[in-house]
Amino acid sequence: METTRSDSHLDRYAARARGMVASEIRALFAVATRPEIVSLAGGMPFVSALPLDDVGAMLQHLIETRGAQALQYGSAQGDPELRERICEVMALEGITASPEDVTVTVGSQQALDLLTRIFIDPGDVVLAESPSYVGALGTFAAYQADVVHVPMDSLGLIPEALRETLTNLRGRRVKFLYTIPTFQNPAGVTLSTARRREILAIAEEFDLLIIEDNPYGLLSFDGHPPRPLRADESERVIYLGSFSKTFASGLRVGWALAPHAVRAKLVLAAESAMLSHSNLTQLAVREFLATHPWKEQVKSFTELYRERRDAMLESLTAHMPEGTTWTRPGGGFFVWLTLPEGLDSKAMAPLAIANRVAYVPGTGFYADGSGHRHMRISFCYPDPTQIQEGVRRLAEVIHAEVDLRNTFHP
Amino acid sequence: METTRSDSHLDRYAARARGMVASEIRALFAVATRPEIVSLAGGMPFVSALPLDDVGAMLQHLIETRGAQALQYGSAQGDPELRERICEVMALEGITASPEDVTVTVGSQQALDLLTRIFIDPGDVVLAESPSYVGALGTFAAYQADVVHVPMDSLGLIPEALRETLTNLRGRRVKFLYTIPTFQNPAGVTLSTARRREILAIAEEFDLLIIEDNPYGLLSFDGHPPRPLRADESERVIYLGSFSKTFASGLRVGWALAPHAVRAKLVLAAESAMLSHSNLTQLAVREFLATHPWKEQVKSFTELYRERRDAMLESLTAHMPEGTTWTRPGGGFFVWLTLPEGLDSKAMAPLAIANRVAYVPGTGFYADGSGHRHMRISFCYPDPTQIQEGVRRLAEVIHAEVDLRNTFHP
Repeated sequence: METTRSDSHLDRYAARARGMVASEIRALFAVATRPEIVSLAGGMPFVSALPLDDVGAMLQHLIETRGAQALQYGSAQGDPELRERICEVMALEGITASPEDVTVTVGSQQALDLLTRIFIDPGDVVLAESPSYVGALGTFAAYQADVVHVPMDSLGLIPEALRETLTNLRGRRVKFLYTIPTFQNPAGVTLSTARRREILAIAEEFDLLIIEDNPYGLLSFDGHPPRPLRADESERVIYLGSFSKTFASGLRVGWALAPHAVRAKLVLAAESAMLSHSNLTQLAVREFLATHPWKEQVKSFTELYRERRDAMLESLTAHMPEGTTWTRPGGGFFVWLTLPEGLDSKAMAPLAIANRVAYVPGTGFYADGSGHRHMRISFCYPDPTQIQEGVRRLAEVIHAEVDLRNTFHP
Repeated sequence: METTRSDSHLDRYAARARGMVASEIRALFAVATRPEIVSLAGGMPFVSALPLDDVGAMLQHLIETRGAQALQYGSAQGDPELRERICEVMALEGITASPEDVTVTVGSQQALDLLTRIFIDPGDVVLAESPSYVGALGTFAAYQADVVHVPMDSLGLIPEALRETLTNLRGRRVKFLYTIPTFQNPAGVTLSTARRREILAIAEEFDLLIIEDNPYGLLSFDGHPPRPLRADESERVIYLGSFSKTFASGLRVGWALAPHAVRAKLVLAAESAMLSHSNLTQLAVREFLATHPWKEQVKSFTELYRERRDAMLESLTAHMPEGTTWTRPGGGFFVWLTLPEGLDSKAMAPLAIANRVAYVPGTGFYADGSGHRHMRISFCYPDPTQIQEGVRRLAEVIHAEVDLRNTFHP
């Protein structure tokens, strides 16, 4: 629609703004919200599982007792008590950290944005898994980074591939590796323990900085969150966490744990970006962690998502045609599906919508235009019955496409 | 403290990060919070004047009735109903606008950050009043803009000076004029009606884009908010508003009203910067506007600040030595004080702290190192008695400095 109007400001934009175009995924999400469609596209946590009455009473109490603070400006680094609680949350995964090195951000997305701002000059290289999180790719593009993908398999990022990529890139400014080692978005795979050690050793060898994004770590279906890279390396790993999946995405409270000097830059960047985070939402999280059985809440979220994951995997086995493969996530929100040869998830998306099911085509998760044979399907928001129906509808579309392919390319 | 540790990431930073250094003002604020000090330094609204019990009950009701929305991700542009309410707020000042052209931001600071991101390549020129808001100057510096100041007087920005500056800058990429026409921060002056017309005419003549920052417009001590530039020009003016001063700064809800094409870029930049704003804080503002007598609230804030402004102006007249001058704000939070010749507000700041009063030295409000004879003193947070005492203490310091000057430079 925008393209039909002329833009009188066209000559004024910065070079970086020319690359700002609406992602296809957003357009898809708009369609996917129609009630007749089962959406396997979104990444929304199922916040209705929260005890809403308790949360409401908690907020009332917060304003009555500390309203003058909750409604006032805060500091750019974030509330000190919340940062202490955040260190306790990270300790559950084996991380030892000081609240001094934590910066509270508007979701971990803002942490990504501010870190990219600090580190990336146009043309600098960012390494990312293949595929990688669409929101991170968007941010890297906004700062004109050159994203180079490193292959993964069912055990996560492949160390030999990382080493080879780094060797090939000698002479380029490789600023950092962006990785989601645990319950990866979109691939749903988890980096093995042995590979975590190898990757840290390669980072040491090549003097590589790592940004470890870990929004799903506590949502482990076997109850044991994998040990983050940051737990074994504090100077070379910047860790990003979030309460979006363990409490409520609508509060937009995430954080970055960074080496001391980087943290200082991060706070300055945060101040320039927004002065300070909302004290209301920060104190809401702090209060929730202090007064609610929040580990029980995480456990109940995990059970809910495990049940949905099971429904998805069972339906996939029951309905998908031969040649279709998918990952088996041990936690998190997503399954990564690979179509039979010759099929194209992007071309197929309108047909799926017509059959009342939505997914995210794989192309959104690559900076290099690949991903046509893949798609991300999520099990976080729809209930098990809806998931079963959605997968059934999706399988119908894939079957039809396979038939069509067989007819024209027998 | 940071400088004593070596930074192993020094070679990794982007060019823009090298200029990220802590502002002197922040260090001052840290000292100014000591209880024995009367701080005339801050810009915190007096949120304790809000009906906290009502706000608490409102939040409880919000979570109980619409918790699943308030705690969930929203859209990058911001809640549609809130954007409608925002248009009603702007209508009070004479602005006609569509909710489609509004983007909700994390305070107006984030709007500034995102607009600078969209428009500024390193070395581009931004025009700003002399003096200008310290937070805006920080953001412009973060994007490596070249800030050129345009002189003001007691009637605001001087049109002839703007014309002269633009003429001198022909051949340079002047991306926009950043202006706070009403109850300016830090100068406390308001652009006259005649000058508003002249400045719009100059913008037309030179094809100049204007960013109009208007956080204080509704806090007019005579009850009549001045008509914003945006009310008379919609394609060439981007308007920034905020609920930080009329409701609560701790919610971090501001907005930008931009021409359609710019708005599209702004939403993409917001998505890349944070995915979406907090639904909780957006819905809190929406609910406040819908269910509370918020215009009465603004009126009561205005009366509170007018009383404090009066206390400040009376104390200044009573205590300040000859040669000291100051502005007489018709609204907002700030008075701009000019010291007698030969005095230096930055050098004097530690003496003021020792005499238990804090202010912001003028140098923070200039990108070019000037401002030594000026300071910003605010009347928003301390009560009238504290203001009187603070001004008395400040006058003591200035008297002593004048005596010292007379002794050494008679």
